[in-house]
Amino acid sequence: MNQISITAGKIAELVKGQLIGDPERVVTGVASLKDAAPEQVSFVSNKKYQKQLLESRAGVVLVCRDLADEPADDRTLIVCENADYAFSQVIMIFADKSPVWKEGVHPSAVVDESAKLGAGVSIGANAVIEAGAEIGDGTVIGAGCYIGHDVKIGCGSLLYPNVTVMYRCRIGSKVVIHPGVVIGGDGFGFVPGPKGLVKVPQTGIVQIDDDVEIGANTTIDRARFGKTWIKSNVKVDNLVMIAHNVVIGESSILVAQCGIAGSAELGRGVILAAKSGVNGHITLGDGVQVAGTSGVVKSLPAGAIALGTPAESQREFMARYTLPSRFEKLTAKVEALKKELEELKNK
Amino acid sequence: MNQISITAGKIAELVKGQLIGDPERVVTGVASLKDAAPEQVSFVSNKKYQKQLLESRAGVVLVCRDLADEPADDRTLIVCENADYAFSQVIMIFADKSPVWKEGVHPSAVVDESAKLGAGVSIGANAVIEAGAEIGDGTVIGAGCYIGHDVKIGCGSLLYPNVTVMYRCRIGSKVVIHPGVVIGGDGFGFVPGPKGLVKVPQTGIVQIDDDVEIGANTTIDRARFGKTWIKSNVKVDNLVMIAHNVVIGESSILVAQCGIAGSAELGRGVILAAKSGVNGHITLGDGVQVAGTSGVVKSLPAGAIALGTPAESQREFMARYTLPSRFEKLTAKVEALKKELEELKNK
Amino acid sequence: MNQISITAGKIAELVKGQLIGDPERVVTGVASLKDAAPEQVSFVSNKKYQKQLLESRAGVVLVCRDLADEPADDRTLIVCENADYAFSQVIMIFADKSPVWKEGVHPSAVVDESAKLGAGVSIGANAVIEAGAEIGDGTVIGAGCYIGHDVKIGCGSLLYPNVTVMYRCRIGSKVVIHPGVVIGGDGFGFVPGPKGLVKVPQTGIVQIDDDVEIGANTTIDRARFGKTWIKSNVKVDNLVMIAHNVVIGESSILVAQCGIAGSAELGRGVILAAKSGVNGHITLGDGVQVAGTSGVVKSLPAGAIALGTPAESQREFMARYTLPSRFEKLTAKVEALKKELEELKNK
Repeated sequence: MNQISITAGKIAELVKGQLIGDPERVVTGVASLKDAAPEQVSFVSNKKYQKQLLESRAGVVLVCRDLADEPADDRTLIVCENADYAFSQVIMIFADKSPVWKEGVHPSAVVDESAKLGAGVSIGANAVIEAGAEIGDGTVIGAGCYIGHDVKIGCGSLLYPNVTVMYRCRIGSKVVIHPGVVIGGDGFGFVPGPKGLVKVPQTGIVQIDDDVEIGANTTIDRARFGKTWIKSNVKVDNLVMIAHNVVIGESSILVAQCGIAGSAELGRGVILAAKSGVNGHITLGDGVQVAGTSGVVKSLPAGAIALGTPAESQREFMARYTLPSRFEKLTAKVEALKKELEELKNK
Repeated sequence: MNQISITAGKIAELVKGQLIGDPERVVTGVASLKDAAPEQVSFVSNKKYQKQLLESRAGVVLVCRDLADEPADDRTLIVCENADYAFSQVIMIFADKSPVWKEGVHPSAVVDESAKLGAGVSIGANAVIEAGAEIGDGTVIGAGCYIGHDVKIGCGSLLYPNVTVMYRCRIGSKVVIHPGVVIGGDGFGFVPGPKGLVKVPQTGIVQIDDDVEIGANTTIDRARFGKTWIKSNVKVDNLVMIAHNVVIGESSILVAQCGIAGSAELGRGVILAAKSGVNGHITLGDGVQVAGTSGVVKSLPAGAIALGTPAESQREFMARYTLPSRFEKLTAKVEALKKELEELKNK
Repeated sequence: MNQISITAGKIAELVKGQLIGDPERVVTGVASLKDAAPEQVSFVSNKKYQKQLLESRAGVVLVCRDLADEPADDRTLIVCENADYAFSQVIMIFADKSPVWKEGVHPSAVVDESAKLGAGVSIGANAVIEAGAEIGDGTVIGAGCYIGHDVKIGCGSLLYPNVTVMYRCRIGSKVVIHPGVVIGGDGFGFVPGPKGLVKVPQTGIVQIDDDVEIGANTTIDRARFGKTWIKSNVKVDNLVMIAHNVVIGESSILVAQCGIAGSAELGRGVILAAKSGVNGHITLGDGVQVAGTSGVVKSLPAGAIALGTPAESQREFMARYTLPSRFEKLTAKVEALKKELEELKNK
């Protein structure tokens, strides 16, 4: 652990925040509101956590504007436009450094002589680079990675250890890929034949554009033909499944354990929450948001919000979700009618 | 990329289709209807995509019989019994070749001297083969694979890079295993003991029969005793979980991210759609089909179709699914009754 | 396979059970009730499997007390307090031995000279140990594992092949980690910025306490700051996703394919069944049980049982689940009322 101290005043300066309290207050680390000690700095980015703020022992707290006039007690507050983002800057003050990936090819790595390595690349221990592969300047290939035949990777990308990229796939620049990811396994296609299931050839590739990040143990299958395509700035979490010929639009976010079936196309800025699924051969327009665990079975227009399985609009979902209580009320109404009717008959 | 040209006539001959249009029309590649250029061949296997056919720029299109009498415009059609299957043959004309896996043991591989390697095997860079393992003729063990003690693998199988097969498991012939698959991790069994959870020993194996294919990062656990058994011709997609002592019948299809709990038994030709789950210790008869995301909690007879969680029949599922609209109608009916009753009382 | 024979009497002695039948009866292996041959021993731990017991061909059967007075036919019964647990002991009599992991560093492993290895450690072929890592006495690092910079692992832990542990993470003693697990990938955090999504730095670690077991291909992300924390004796199945800053209380059980979003905190002895999910920033009290596939969206008190998505109490879940049949009854009641009303009007 580093031993770093900094004053509240210096922090306020760094994050361009407005300080309320003692600018000389010294902190030596970060923590959540709940866990923070008096010598630590924390943050709160939403007024709903006001109670936690009051209970916190944190000496310095980055707060959102809504909480600017809270009594500071013995605390120092720093009011920020975006307390969450500002806190990321503060975290970096105290953060241990990430490992440095040594330039050059580790002697235990197996690099085919026909592979082309750019300037300043780092090839980790026991990595395997097959014939015809090209690795751009400054890219890091972690220990134990497998880079298949004729794979092309751009510049400044970072493949953590034990990533597998199969033959002919294309990866852009400034792409980050976490351990255990598999890119370019065969798409899943079989048709019934006279002697059992027959494999449909999967002859395409996976193309991943610049600035994409892919979480641990996610799998992206190669296309039947053409390409499975992850466009620039897409962020993919862990254990996500992206099937053959899928297209993911720019800046979309795919949260953990979601899955997208073959040939589905997602627009720009789509968000699939955790464990959601998208059927094959459908289209999700720009900015579509799918709730966690939902299963989308038909195409959705830009901006749609979908919940449940099969996924519905918020209005439809709420109509379904509130059925039990509405049913109780209707039952009571029917009982009342029945009673009234009885009374009427008895007259 | 290969540069290959072929005439529509030659393609019709290859796929045994009936040509409508210009047999001398030349194409140089394949694409989807949507993306195809005039010099490319595409396909449509279902009449519901008729509109896309009309809008497509593809020069040659393989079509199903339903679409045989469509005006060909300036296009050439090839009518096929099974346009999808025929298109796979056409894809292969243009496909880049898959990598050739070099015969022999890569010098960086670590093969125990007691392991037995068949004729023509390929052991990739940095693969590890433990004592007592046996690899059949012509089988490929990809770079970075781990083949545990006393594992037996048949002939002509293909293990892509970074596959892990733990001790004593058995894999048949012509089996394809994609990267990151783990075969033979311990089954998940713990019982409460006086000092916490106690591990139930997992002493069995995994047996995978011939012609099975297993998708990237799928896991198949070893049995508590006896074997977890994947029978011949089963096709498993990515990120699937198969627990200890499960039995999967011949030619079953397990789509991405589905999971099967311990000791469940699936018959022949069962289809589990994406993200579905099957409880432990239950039986699914031959040909059972489970819809995506459904959770099956009790045994199902042969041929059953199950949807939802807990999974129900189609009839039950529809009764549940249509509840909101039926509820609205019943509410209206009750309101009408109430009004009639009021009127009657007022008389 | 070993060739081992043992008498029923010896087994009864081993499991401290009460023998009914022939103590000299010899068995040579274990099997399930369904598969067992007369020379095999099986078990039944629940009276609901009484029929299978009667139909079984097993020569010796460990039974629970409820089944003690069943006619033994030509079988020998051994009555046990806990037949399931007792059977685990019997399995071990016949089990093939697990592989022995050779002490020492395999010559193909790449161990940084600054790494500290305890007494009796085993470092497998092609494993990579980075600078500053510390491996405790008797710990096994399997072939192909990657142990990152400054990682600390305790004593007597077993990392199976192809596990990835990223920099600075902490793993306790007697921890078992199955193949393909990724510990310490970055947490998933991005915020919208002027030029697209901006990565939120993930500077913390993962800490795994003693006696934890983690199933194949599971992923546990490093914290944004501080630690993602798996407390002692937690058991995690395959393909589970544990996000950044999650805390899992002692002896909790996370079944296959479940997922826990960022900063959620689980108490002691929580059970998440297969494919369930827990939202971020919520708290599950001690002993909470979540049913398979359920999605928990709000905090739950100790002892709560939650089902469905969004997860509800058993009472709420049943109210929802039984709606279709209750709806039919209410519809019939409304029809009857309508008819009565008609009759009344016609008078």
